[in-house]
Amino acid sequence: MNYKVKVGISNHHIHLTEETYYQLFDKEPSKRNDLNQIGEYACNETVTIKGPKGSIPNVRIMGPFRSYNQVEISRSDAFLLGLNPPVRKSGQIANSATITLISSKNTITLEEACIIANRHVHMNPLTAEKLNVVDNQLVKLAIKGDKSCILDAYVKISANGYFETHLDFDDANACGLKNNDEIDLII
Amino acid sequence: MNYKVKVGISNHHIHLTEETYYQLFDKEPSKRNDLNQIGEYACNETVTIKGPKGSIPNVRIMGPFRSYNQVEISRSDAFLLGLNPPVRKSGQIANSATITLISSKNTITLEEACIIANRHVHMNPLTAEKLNVVDNQLVKLAIKGDKSCILDAYVKISANGYFETHLDFDDANACGLKNNDEIDLII
Repeated sequence: MNYKVKVGISNHHIHLTEETYYQLFDKEPSKRNDLNQIGEYACNETVTIKGPKGSIPNVRIMGPFRSYNQVEISRSDAFLLGLNPPVRKSGQIANSATITLISSKNTITLEEACIIANRHVHMNPLTAEKLNVVDNQLVKLAIKGDKSCILDAYVKISANGYFETHLDFDDANACGLKNNDEIDLII
Repeated sequence: MNYKVKVGISNHHIHLTEETYYQLFDKEPSKRNDLNQIGEYACNETVTIKGPKGSIPNVRIMGPFRSYNQVEISRSDAFLLGLNPPVRKSGQIANSATITLISSKNTITLEEACIIANRHVHMNPLTAEKLNVVDNQLVKLAIKGDKSCILDAYVKISANGYFETHLDFDDANACGLKNNDEIDLII
């Protein structure tokens, strides 16, 4: 079956535990803007992320706090930083890459925190039932135009799920996509 | 039919006419290394490329001279420079983007020169005959792994063609590919 789904392009970003957040900042996080995923938001707070070869400034913290620290970057970012993070679904950070976070208050190194997020399609259980898919199911994203291709992606079902496909900037640039472009989801 | 083809990742680079080259440099171009495409080579000479929003240093000139000026960049580069070049096959530069080249000798602006190269599979006429394909034919590149996908690409037949697929860094990073990786060519 073919459906239409909107694209959300994820830039590098950071999820932190409350404990790690307060090692980096003195004040509580402040909301900059809501994300499409219900209850999630981008904070005004940013840090510099650093690897063996380079660093990237102004990388944004996402809220709310999570039970793990996770820095999501693209393969392009990884080359710049000198890291080789695995491609993972969110939350699977065992044996992921080590990365350093620098705020004006502190510098901390997270041993297992840095991943390249896999391509995924967010949805809530109701949408999943309508589309007849299960969590982690492999689906296909068909992109038209002069950089046409078919990308593999994974279904991600959560109670707060808003129906959209998350790609990183490498994927988006390789496909000539911009935020909110509508593409074909093939199940 | 399925074949194996090696990947060559193209970084941003420049082809120049003899006239434009000597506007930028006083000495003749010197070879740095041969490319796989027979008779083509990377020069030691580099320039800075500049757009409305930014610039990229150390962008390499390729030899030999061509009958047109062409600056090939990725979509990522285009965002950094503030340009919106079309996706084109090499040599199709009509109505392409304007870009500025800066050497120690001179600064020149090329009105129609900057493109994002389309994905293409180089081959010579003999290989094309074996594979039963014609120039510009659409073919598919199947990439396995944790960033699996199928990319559309175009056959490019030339007398000096060495059989390989040219992708830019956006494509390569989106697919988790490195130079000389072998992928499936589906015809």
